[in-house]
Amino acid sequence: MKLSKMILGTLREVQGETELESYKLMVRAGIIRKVASGVYNFMPTGKKIINNVNSLIKNEMEKMDSQEIEVSQFVPFESLNQCNNKENNSTDTFEIVDKSQKKFYVGAGFKESYIEIMKNEIKSYKQLPVSIYSIQKRIKDETKPKFGIIKSKEFNELQCYVFYDDSVEAEQYVNRLCEVFNGIYHKCGIDFIKTNSLKFFIKHSLGEEGMACCEACEYKEDLEIAKCALREKEEDDMKPLNKISTPDTRTIDELASFFNTTPEYFVKTIIYKINNKIVAVMVRGDREVNETKVKSSMGYIVSFELADEDMVRYATSAEVGFAGPINLKCDTLLVDEEITRMRNFMVGANDTGYHYEYVNYERDFTGIVGDFKKITEKDKCPVCGNSIKIKSVMRLGEIANLETTYAENMNAVFLDKLGKNKPMSIIEASINVDRLLALIVEQNHDENGIVWPKSVAPYEVIVIAAVFKNEEQMKAAENIYNKLRSIGIDVLLDDRDERAGVKFKDADLIGVPIRITVGKKISDGKVEFKLRNNDNVEDINISDIEEKVLSELHKN
Amino acid sequence: MKLSKMILGTLREVQGETELESYKLMVRAGIIRKVASGVYNFMPTGKKIINNVNSLIKNEMEKMDSQEIEVSQFVPFESLNQCNNKENNSTDTFEIVDKSQKKFYVGAGFKESYIEIMKNEIKSYKQLPVSIYSIQKRIKDETKPKFGIIKSKEFNELQCYVFYDDSVEAEQYVNRLCEVFNGIYHKCGIDFIKTNSLKFFIKHSLGEEGMACCEACEYKEDLEIAKCALREKEEDDMKPLNKISTPDTRTIDELASFFNTTPEYFVKTIIYKINNKIVAVMVRGDREVNETKVKSSMGYIVSFELADEDMVRYATSAEVGFAGPINLKCDTLLVDEEITRMRNFMVGANDTGYHYEYVNYERDFTGIVGDFKKITEKDKCPVCGNSIKIKSVMRLGEIANLETTYAENMNAVFLDKLGKNKPMSIIEASINVDRLLALIVEQNHDENGIVWPKSVAPYEVIVIAAVFKNEEQMKAAENIYNKLRSIGIDVLLDDRDERAGVKFKDADLIGVPIRITVGKKISDGKVEFKLRNNDNVEDINISDIEEKVLSELHKN
Repeated sequence: MKLSKMILGTLREVQGETELESYKLMVRAGIIRKVASGVYNFMPTGKKIINNVNSLIKNEMEKMDSQEIEVSQFVPFESLNQCNNKENNSTDTFEIVDKSQKKFYVGAGFKESYIEIMKNEIKSYKQLPVSIYSIQKRIKDETKPKFGIIKSKEFNELQCYVFYDDSVEAEQYVNRLCEVFNGIYHKCGIDFIKTNSLKFFIKHSLGEEGMACCEACEYKEDLEIAKCALREKEEDDMKPLNKISTPDTRTIDELASFFNTTPEYFVKTIIYKINNKIVAVMVRGDREVNETKVKSSMGYIVSFELADEDMVRYATSAEVGFAGPINLKCDTLLVDEEITRMRNFMVGANDTGYHYEYVNYERDFTGIVGDFKKITEKDKCPVCGNSIKIKSVMRLGEIANLETTYAENMNAVFLDKLGKNKPMSIIEASINVDRLLALIVEQNHDENGIVWPKSVAPYEVIVIAAVFKNEEQMKAAENIYNKLRSIGIDVLLDDRDERAGVKFKDADLIGVPIRITVGKKISDGKVEFKLRNNDNVEDINISDIEEKVLSELHKN
Repeated sequence: MKLSKMILGTLREVQGETELESYKLMVRAGIIRKVASGVYNFMPTGKKIINNVNSLIKNEMEKMDSQEIEVSQFVPFESLNQCNNKENNSTDTFEIVDKSQKKFYVGAGFKESYIEIMKNEIKSYKQLPVSIYSIQKRIKDETKPKFGIIKSKEFNELQCYVFYDDSVEAEQYVNRLCEVFNGIYHKCGIDFIKTNSLKFFIKHSLGEEGMACCEACEYKEDLEIAKCALREKEEDDMKPLNKISTPDTRTIDELASFFNTTPEYFVKTIIYKINNKIVAVMVRGDREVNETKVKSSMGYIVSFELADEDMVRYATSAEVGFAGPINLKCDTLLVDEEITRMRNFMVGANDTGYHYEYVNYERDFTGIVGDFKKITEKDKCPVCGNSIKIKSVMRLGEIANLETTYAENMNAVFLDKLGKNKPMSIIEASINVDRLLALIVEQNHDENGIVWPKSVAPYEVIVIAAVFKNEEQMKAAENIYNKLRSIGIDVLLDDRDERAGVKFKDADLIGVPIRITVGKKISDGKVEFKLRNNDNVEDINISDIEEKVLSELHKN
């Protein structure tokens, strides 16, 4: 393409919302334009990059014989509601009522759509395993759009599903998907971290998610589900339960200073209203409740919130600040496993101004024991017991084995070898393509602009005539442009009436991998050859251009 | 791809909604699956066809240097409302309110999005002309979804815009777009008709739109805007206006039989409520009002409906059935041009049980004169005066020169050569890609299934082993499959354990252009070669397959 005919739209600076380098660079390079908060248009250069990333992904998907489909953006209300999963109830989903008063979820990206399709097509074990995927635009009522296309209201997303029969294949397919993800990220020039639960992240100081990483072994996990090693069980003798007056001490910190000790000696009881029931969660005094863990232990979530003061008063028969497990009116009591290993701890007494000391699990109360805590850098690795670092990260994608849960809810069954109905096992994998694009820029830029990896770059080569008014240079530049086009190279010709400096700046900003400059030395049959990711400028003969370009593009 | 690994989903028959051949065939061939009324999924074969049509369109667009962009599906309320056009107020648009209470139109496809983009990028005449396009999924609150993907709630659509400076270029660009459309339809095997106003149709007995075609000259027009030759002006002397009693005659037919004449001697007055105003439209008694023509004469339409009985009574001071132009209380009176050429006609008297006879335009009433009638086969060609046939048609696409109307409303201006602000002129072109796909099938099928044109076909070649259990045949089939794949042919191997008859039926149903059957003659090194659009079966040597396939695929 000739730049004079293009909508290039490069800018020297960006106004507003500039916290993130990728956002600034993508706006400056004319890749995206903001429409509203979390809503962006992709300009011609951006669309080319999106197309490149999509076709790179498609290539990888085809290698594993996954078949592309196009899923409707409309999901009838009843088909999502048959499947009791948490996401259905996500407040991030837009709902629409059409003229015939039919209610739809809208915006694509629902597991149920894919499962519904296969439910109707798959009859027999002979058809399994099979995989489908789609790369489609989703819309989402994102609460806090942020960082440009990293967290936006609409985005292209790869969703891939593998339907299989038994658990031997599962691992095979999960591994195959990991290879595919590896291949995609590698070609995109992304330096990623894969957690043990198959979430893919990049490290980023502004990341809004956390990852726990062991400093000694391979343990890496999403902070939302990361575990830690448990301390040894305390073996002190149990002392007799004792109710003591603790006037005006409601918080753990107040208690700790009242008793002149640290929060670790207390256990706090947090009351939630989940699905309209009272659910109390107990964690050690210095801990915080991990709500993700609580949710996943509670099954189907219709609603989830902290209990209001009235509910706390009802449950505890006391003012707020004195909740504890003994004589608590609740439907479910969740007890973090750590507490069962503690001895003689302190809890609220469900009586205004009182706490119990010398409390012990099993003797004084019981509940559902599990892991309900957020872990911190004070914790130790659950695998090897060494120190854990918590890194802030941004999410690239994930692979999850849903096993038969969804198929069971949706009655997605097939006839197995014995002629019996069996629910399909399902693996899901997804990548937010728009975010991927932004994260490529996060990891591939310098002070002059973007440094696109070759497989993603919007153009492979840019040809620049140093002096617009020099006919010899312009003509040579155009010849080189035509020659490269004729051998299938995606080449840009900067034929604008601009100074060479402006053209170099734009070429660097957009991040074209190869720059060919036609300058004074053209009279000796020579041009300048420069790679975007290298400062060397090389003089080469015009006759060598094709070979040089092809060899650079085919290098790994 | 091997069929044993594919989700093929061919069916012998289709239940329900089977009025249209393309719908039946696309469901039977496993191309689409219905989710709800007007909502469909594209299965793997369907998605391949969509991809092929899209890339065929992209190729044509690139030939005219149009640049692809990706437009947000969200359009902020305020940006559509700044531009007073009728479509904004279309009840076919879904509206969404996000969590931050911001209101959006949703579903892409709004002219305003494209104009807004260029308004921000184009500063100077030097950047013009320029063209952008997108092929994106739109959603639409279609009142009556019908005929499968021909009229559905969501569809892929090509939208192309050309922004230009002056009117010399306009014709050039319109012609260029016509060539592009020509190229697309031709490659899709579509036999289309282009109207004078650049709407593209195919003839179809079930088509819900009409096209007026002159039987002698080249006049072809969308019935919604088609004109007709006017009869000669009647030159009779005007008789004195006379009010006569016409008890119980409210309709034109009742009047005609009351006076023992034909409806042509009457003029009817139909009352509408448009933008909350009373608008009366007069057409000859045997005519019907063309509401499209009325709408386009009324400018910005917020609401449009027939007046209710109360409004009619108020406007006419009479019961329903006696409306006429004399002493009518209305805000606007639209008079079809034909009426100004009539003499001594009859109208309602705005008095229950009375009509006026010997009414004449200008002497007895005046209004806004224009073309407000539906034309019929009784009319004559507006160009040559010969007979007109009205054909039922389905719409393929359209090109429209919007000129500066939208740019003026949206203040989308550029600096012209004199340094003055000038609104951009805009040409719009669009094709509903999903409908195009269905119409290809309408025009390219036989009793056995679909006959895809080569450039659209989901696969180029299908290789079938006649006897699944015959190892020699299966091995040879697989070899041919691998060989063809290795030279870049998109080939299917039917390796299912099915009878040859079933495989042939499926191959015909899906419509693969070339079928290669490995049968008994494989022992002599021969296979059967058959084209989908030809009954001939040819025995060819294995060694000739590649050459034969390539030569067939490259034939025009």
